Amino acid sequence: MRGQKEDAAKTARIIRAARGVEPLDTIIANGKVVSVFTGEMIECDVGIKDGVIATLDAKGLGSAETVDVRGMFVAPSFIDGHIHIESSMLCPERFAEAVVPRGTGAGVSDPHEIANVLGVPGVLYMERASKSLPMDFYFTLPSCVPATSLETSGASISSCDIRKLMELLPGSPALSEMMNFPGVLFCDGEVLEKIAAAKAGGLKIDGHAPMLSGRALDAYLSAGISTDHESTTKEEVLEKLRKGCFILAREGSASKNLEETLKALDRFSLGRAAIVSDDRHPGSLLEEGHLDASLRKAVKAGLDPVEALRLVTINPALAFGLSGKGAVAPGYYADLAILEDLASFKAISVFHKGRLAARDGKLMRELSVLEEKSVLSSVTLPADLEAKLVYPEKGSVRVIKVFPEQILTKKETARVSDAACGAINLAAVIERHGKNGNVGVGFVSGFNLKAGAIASTVSHDSHNIVAVGTSAGEIAFAARSVAEIGGGYVVVKNGEVLARLPLEVAGLMSREPAAKVASALKDLHEKAASLGTTLPSPLMTMSFIALPVIPELRLTDKGLVDVGKFDFVPLKAE
Amino acid sequence: MRGQKEDAAKTARIIRAARGVEPLDTIIANGKVVSVFTGEMIECDVGIKDGVIATLDAKGLGSAETVDVRGMFVAPSFIDGHIHIESSMLCPERFAEAVVPRGTGAGVSDPHEIANVLGVPGVLYMERASKSLPMDFYFTLPSCVPATSLETSGASISSCDIRKLMELLPGSPALSEMMNFPGVLFCDGEVLEKIAAAKAGGLKIDGHAPMLSGRALDAYLSAGISTDHESTTKEEVLEKLRKGCFILAREGSASKNLEETLKALDRFSLGRAAIVSDDRHPGSLLEEGHLDASLRKAVKAGLDPVEALRLVTINPALAFGLSGKGAVAPGYYADLAILEDLASFKAISVFHKGRLAARDGKLMRELSVLEEKSVLSSVTLPADLEAKLVYPEKGSVRVIKVFPEQILTKKETARVSDAACGAINLAAVIERHGKNGNVGVGFVSGFNLKAGAIASTVSHDSHNIVAVGTSAGEIAFAARSVAEIGGGYVVVKNGEVLARLPLEVAGLMSREPAAKVASALKDLHEKAASLGTTLPSPLMTMSFIALPVIPELRLTDKGLVDVGKFDFVPLKAE
Repeated sequence: MRGQKEDAAKTARIIRAARGVEPLDTIIANGKVVSVFTGEMIECDVGIKDGVIATLDAKGLGSAETVDVRGMFVAPSFIDGHIHIESSMLCPERFAEAVVPRGTGAGVSDPHEIANVLGVPGVLYMERASKSLPMDFYFTLPSCVPATSLETSGASISSCDIRKLMELLPGSPALSEMMNFPGVLFCDGEVLEKIAAAKAGGLKIDGHAPMLSGRALDAYLSAGISTDHESTTKEEVLEKLRKGCFILAREGSASKNLEETLKALDRFSLGRAAIVSDDRHPGSLLEEGHLDASLRKAVKAGLDPVEALRLVTINPALAFGLSGKGAVAPGYYADLAILEDLASFKAISVFHKGRLAARDGKLMRELSVLEEKSVLSSVTLPADLEAKLVYPEKGSVRVIKVFPEQILTKKETARVSDAACGAINLAAVIERHGKNGNVGVGFVSGFNLKAGAIASTVSHDSHNIVAVGTSAGEIAFAARSVAEIGGGYVVVKNGEVLARLPLEVAGLMSREPAAKVASALKDLHEKAASLGTTLPSPLMTMSFIALPVIPELRLTDKGLVDVGKFDFVPLKAE
Repeated sequence: MRGQKEDAAKTARIIRAARGVEPLDTIIANGKVVSVFTGEMIECDVGIKDGVIATLDAKGLGSAETVDVRGMFVAPSFIDGHIHIESSMLCPERFAEAVVPRGTGAGVSDPHEIANVLGVPGVLYMERASKSLPMDFYFTLPSCVPATSLETSGASISSCDIRKLMELLPGSPALSEMMNFPGVLFCDGEVLEKIAAAKAGGLKIDGHAPMLSGRALDAYLSAGISTDHESTTKEEVLEKLRKGCFILAREGSASKNLEETLKALDRFSLGRAAIVSDDRHPGSLLEEGHLDASLRKAVKAGLDPVEALRLVTINPALAFGLSGKGAVAPGYYADLAILEDLASFKAISVFHKGRLAARDGKLMRELSVLEEKSVLSSVTLPADLEAKLVYPEKGSVRVIKVFPEQILTKKETARVSDAACGAINLAAVIERHGKNGNVGVGFVSGFNLKAGAIASTVSHDSHNIVAVGTSAGEIAFAARSVAEIGGGYVVVKNGEVLARLPLEVAGLMSREPAAKVASALKDLHEKAASLGTTLPSPLMTMSFIALPVIPELRLTDKGLVDVGKFDFVPLKAE
């Protein structure tokens, strides 16, 4: 179990306060406690001492403070069982600022993206940045860094590093999602060593097994992998449930699997699932919400509200062994969401370890953002960038065809000359970690840029610079512009930066508030549209061009990758 | 999580076997797997490699061995979430011999009794004796040794010892039942240190809180205590459930709380409970059974059979963090009970880590019983025993009144001369650990012995010699007789031993099979009846005379205890 290591003196204070022989710190009076254990609404006064719930029977006891919640529901604050903070483009402090007022109290977070840029120090930065937040992050240990050998990442994490991280982060609940399922199935030595190290240390092994079924799924799970957030159909959920897999129903900004997952769950299996978000973009965090949005959706889909609450409280806490989390009961942390009703799940106020963390949608205190220079200079361009942006002047080339709101690409061919009218665009992936200065050059269709270029350091999974533009010159300028702001997104045209979003932390996250980041993103999209693109999310689509594990054709800093062959192919089509 | 620390090479073999590229060890063919996750019966072939379930889709795969179970149910073998092996009077090997054929695969066992006699070495003996059994014992770390300061125990276990045991037994899931609830409520330093040490090491804190409720219960649970097996009413179960306590429904030989507990459980809370046995005597193990008997009773009481199975499989496994236990699914240990039906729960065969452990009610191999001299010489009598068996020759004395089949006693007074006709009997508690040679002398009523004496080294919680008889001479002979056999039970009369049951392991457990022990017990009871006692279980009733925590009057080696005052009182009544 992770996270609850109190000393005897603190335990004594809590016990004495529960008995009424020492004053409580806070009483939450006149609420209806939502019991995730019995499904009941219990009218009682919650007594808190030293951040822990001491008693549910605090009426009449002495207390430094009493908060009257006048008939509202006192629920455990919500726990996200699988979230990549980096996907919000917000540093941990700003992420917390956005989600705590919505009732979120904890997150099991996989720092996979920053680990690909900065390695172990990146993981440790996330932990440090999260230390005094009004919510708790439990960081899992990245299992797949780098994601493949077909690209250059900023760092790698070996089984030795996993052992080291287990010592440095003793509160870590799990080895992060094991995306390398071929590595598991084909018994890659390092993959199995990471799993063995984590199991020996009492960590869970988080899974990632999209569409894996039959004996392949059995083989994958037989390694001791216990959770999965990649199911997209009722049948997939059912098969994984039967095979002992704890289901993390993903409801993210892009992938929405909650409704389908609910179809597979019944009274037997509702204890074997949680709702997670995986990836949430800043706009959707602001407009829709976080787990509160998923709760609304679950209840709208017909789920009992307390069952829905269990999916974001005690269930993920138990699945990841988060001690003292996920319930309103003696001995549990006083992490509370005070809810007006169990339909909107609107949090009137939120308590973290007994302290009022947010009220009426706002944090109670401004969070100070960790100043750490080491994470702010992650972008190193090749000195001879322009010289490396070379491509055939004529003839046929392989082209990556992209589609609106899809990660999947198709391979096709076109003539280089088609680039002149914007039917195809030039693309580049530029190694930015100071490793080897690789530049991969290719062509894409579907972006339809008529002028300028867009570029970003958010580029899964190695997060090199990816750029799409109408010429080598525009791309080089875009790359230089993105490097100048320490990483992030830019839209450029004719030597001018039309829009930018600095993501100065590892080239992935901003230290600005969510509203500012969301507004910058909106501006970026408008300016990108002004360059002629008809894609609704050209920046996100671009971010996945370099991901060499999803079909069909991809571009990394090492060159063009035919995903089916899991190997490089030449740019020239014949 | 406890118990599943496989190396990468083993994991690789299991994965390859699941994929069919390496032969399986065993296929359990044509069964219906009982899914504790979905409630379904899944017709499939279970493939096992290296003791672990590799696949549920083994049909057609190569295997060294195939066992055709022809339509029978393939359930996880049963897990007892709270058992004192010592109460069976059988050493761990003989306990396993008795319960494995009935479908039991694992037990969370509290070695509290042997710890009171032999301390840490006693706990380590239990672990060693259990090493190569066809079931797994997870030993919890005794929290309350000695139980009180009102008696002399053979050993004590301090918070330092708990830390030491955590290193010596890294697979231990919990600090044993915290019986010392006053110690928790009044913040005894050592009690809270033990709890803090266990929590810091990731152990659960097992509870023991009979009839505790309201703020006292809150205070007790707020220390981080997470389980309890002492509820006797629906209301008590409900309150503990609401307060986050995991319910261990006790169904032992003496205390039977299953039916009452079931009244409190519904679809919300069935995941928060398990069925445990706490204490099972050899006779009831042989005649009624173990968890199989509880399953029959639960289903007869109206519980869905798969829900019932969850209460003795995945639920206790999750409550105590027993990794890889409690389900038939890939990655779980191949601990299986092959059941004819889900009403009798009769185990046709039982597998432990993939190996056939029992068939048709019999173990597949004779178990060798650990030979360890250090646990066989636990009885040291005071040299001057007779000289210490003194009492007033006349006048009024305090008397412990006992009742049939009850642990509770009442205090009354009588005249010493009443002993002549057997209306009251002499009783003695003789320190037998070689510590101080204390002898406590008192009188009891309710036994009605007309001749001879009975004596035993089973005497909760310090397990000194307790004896009841018609004279000091009979008692001294009984004590010497019980010492001669290394501890156990005797019935004597006029210098002759009428019946005996040697419990040579710590004076608590026999190394003989259950049938022999049960038969000796029967003989003891017959011979005790021949002495005139009308108590149905005089030996058990006597075993609790020395327990100074249950009202009203008790006798320890240190003297007569008024439990209400928690202090000694003189034998003379005024």
